[in-house]
Amino acid sequence: MASIITLLTDFGTRDAYVAAMKGVILGLNPQAVLVDLTHEVPPQDILAGAFILAEAAPYFPEGAIHLAVVDPGVGTGRRGLAARARGRFWVGPDNGLLSLALGGAPEATIVSLTNPACFRPEVSATFHGRDIFAPVAAHLSLGVDLARLGPIIRDPVALPIAEPVFTPAEARGEIIYVDRFGNLVSNLPGRQLATWLAGRDFRLRVGPLTISQLSRTYSEVAAGECLVLIGSHGFLEIACNRESAARRLGLGVGAILKILY
Amino acid sequence: MASIITLLTDFGTRDAYVAAMKGVILGLNPQAVLVDLTHEVPPQDILAGAFILAEAAPYFPEGAIHLAVVDPGVGTGRRGLAARARGRFWVGPDNGLLSLALGGAPEATIVSLTNPACFRPEVSATFHGRDIFAPVAAHLSLGVDLARLGPIIRDPVALPIAEPVFTPAEARGEIIYVDRFGNLVSNLPGRQLATWLAGRDFRLRVGPLTISQLSRTYSEVAAGECLVLIGSHGFLEIACNRESAARRLGLGVGAILKILY
Amino acid sequence: MASIITLLTDFGTRDAYVAAMKGVILGLNPQAVLVDLTHEVPPQDILAGAFILAEAAPYFPEGAIHLAVVDPGVGTGRRGLAARARGRFWVGPDNGLLSLALGGAPEATIVSLTNPACFRPEVSATFHGRDIFAPVAAHLSLGVDLARLGPIIRDPVALPIAEPVFTPAEARGEIIYVDRFGNLVSNLPGRQLATWLAGRDFRLRVGPLTISQLSRTYSEVAAGECLVLIGSHGFLEIACNRESAARRLGLGVGAILKILY
Repeated sequence: MASIITLLTDFGTRDAYVAAMKGVILGLNPQAVLVDLTHEVPPQDILAGAFILAEAAPYFPEGAIHLAVVDPGVGTGRRGLAARARGRFWVGPDNGLLSLALGGAPEATIVSLTNPACFRPEVSATFHGRDIFAPVAAHLSLGVDLARLGPIIRDPVALPIAEPVFTPAEARGEIIYVDRFGNLVSNLPGRQLATWLAGRDFRLRVGPLTISQLSRTYSEVAAGECLVLIGSHGFLEIACNRESAARRLGLGVGAILKILY
Repeated sequence: MASIITLLTDFGTRDAYVAAMKGVILGLNPQAVLVDLTHEVPPQDILAGAFILAEAAPYFPEGAIHLAVVDPGVGTGRRGLAARARGRFWVGPDNGLLSLALGGAPEATIVSLTNPACFRPEVSATFHGRDIFAPVAAHLSLGVDLARLGPIIRDPVALPIAEPVFTPAEARGEIIYVDRFGNLVSNLPGRQLATWLAGRDFRLRVGPLTISQLSRTYSEVAAGECLVLIGSHGFLEIACNRESAARRLGLGVGAILKILY
Repeated sequence: MASIITLLTDFGTRDAYVAAMKGVILGLNPQAVLVDLTHEVPPQDILAGAFILAEAAPYFPEGAIHLAVVDPGVGTGRRGLAARARGRFWVGPDNGLLSLALGGAPEATIVSLTNPACFRPEVSATFHGRDIFAPVAAHLSLGVDLARLGPIIRDPVALPIAEPVFTPAEARGEIIYVDRFGNLVSNLPGRQLATWLAGRDFRLRVGPLTISQLSRTYSEVAAGECLVLIGSHGFLEIACNRESAARRLGLGVGAILKILY
């Protein structure tokens, strides 16, 4: 079956690791359509991987299988997961990597990967991406039922991410991702913020920056100046025109934003 | 339909941007065959993008769709374009990015993208690659007619590139691209130069380098020495054997070459 | 035919070189399924390319075609090769790049590429990847017989790699690859080593490191500490937990390992 399987890892593309995973998948399902989400997640940065996965996956059609491996705990006791949620499938380690994508999907079915018949015959202690997750994704693409992979679980590991807070006095969020241009992406959803603001004036503070205007595009301010906009992912984002906001402001993941009327 | 769609951007492959574009395309046409030209165009470097696009596209079969996004003016008034020329399709912003590929193709039909029915339902101000250009490319791959996308235009933006000059006394050109090995690619076409030289002796000058011999391969000179050859793209190129000519000679895009008899 | 063709080069993905090869292949066989092994082999590092190729290819299904181009001698007299071995096909320059993959495959059939009917009409002196190897791989994917490509040869170039040595007193090997995490991969196969050790205590020495325990996973030692394990490729490997062993120990390709009882 010509299912789409997307791949996200922190392996880089210099070594043979990603290619080995693709070979394993194509050996089980030669019709699989492989699409790289990214392999440049900063090594072992589960939060960054979780953000990119949750951000990119919704653009793929229903039925897609999203395979993700950022796996510092490989070879220890951590579980492997497969899930069906939002009309698609998800495969990866149980360390929070899938949690942003699955979060708020109450209809999700999640299983722990315990059936070795769906793994490679020999499973190494250091590369479950190749030996467990890739073959499981391939089996899903061939129509294998979730139930065959292992028992249902209800306690997947979640990431310790603060939820954005909206009170009558202020809205508060934090930076959860920095892209390669140095744009600082927050956890404040643009729509929720618009409802809360209801067209009133505001003052946003983050690190050394105070700003009171929402821009629509990066080029609305002079080169080198900072701005705030709702990014293409739908979250409030701090950017500098033609410069890295992260470097310019000395800010990164975890920095707190406050918005006051 | 199993059309080939090639993608060229300056987004890098670290974030979710390229994957989102691929997801949008596959959502509209699951049969599309996606091929990356490159996503490592230096940020906002339209000329470099235009060169790589014009260089790589001709190797693809007729009917291919070439989608290109290097788009510093996104969200401003700049038009989006789709074109049919040289037996294939081209999609991207109207900022010169397509101009080298379309240049000298008098039979080209170019339209301005004005029909929102061919875009994503919601168009962001910062990511037309995902919201306009990707769906337009997908629609073209499904056989949608150019005329449905928008009105014909005859004044696409062109890049301010000097044409090479051939006089009886000298040939003059400039460096228009530096590849990752530091090879300096000029705008002097090898065939035209051969006709002009007609087998005579010559002296080429560029920056600190004077050279009077045309090499056939990089290894014809000692390691670290510079040479001149007709590169695999068909243009005169300055290179150093096993070293970066750009670094060695301190030259880059815009440097002037002169060839005298 | 929907054959898998894998690509390995040292071209990087910034320029148009890899895309041109893919275009040439798809022009001859639009059904070919293209998979990147890597394009980030260190420039002209034939040994690293040979290792990655031999490491990744076995995970692909039989019938796959493995195209590899790390080719410092392009345009000189070096031969081009195509081979059938281990149930799959191999294409690349005759400089040792294929030798680890073909090594110990006595049933291999290797031909020298001499039939220009299987090349692009015009062959440049500097880019045989595009003009010779890509079209040859495409022809193989279409079912063209090896015999049509050129005469059989029996003396392909081999890499000067030391074989591991097992004596009753010691086992000796060397580092043959450093991955992007700085893990040092040796040429000592895990199985052969286990047989030789037969469960006895041992002492391994490499550079400044002496170690007497085999770990199973990277996380078995404290962060920053070094360990020895059988890597996912099946070879003995020196690693540091969450650090680069190469940098930490100041070691690289060619470093000698000794194991004593």
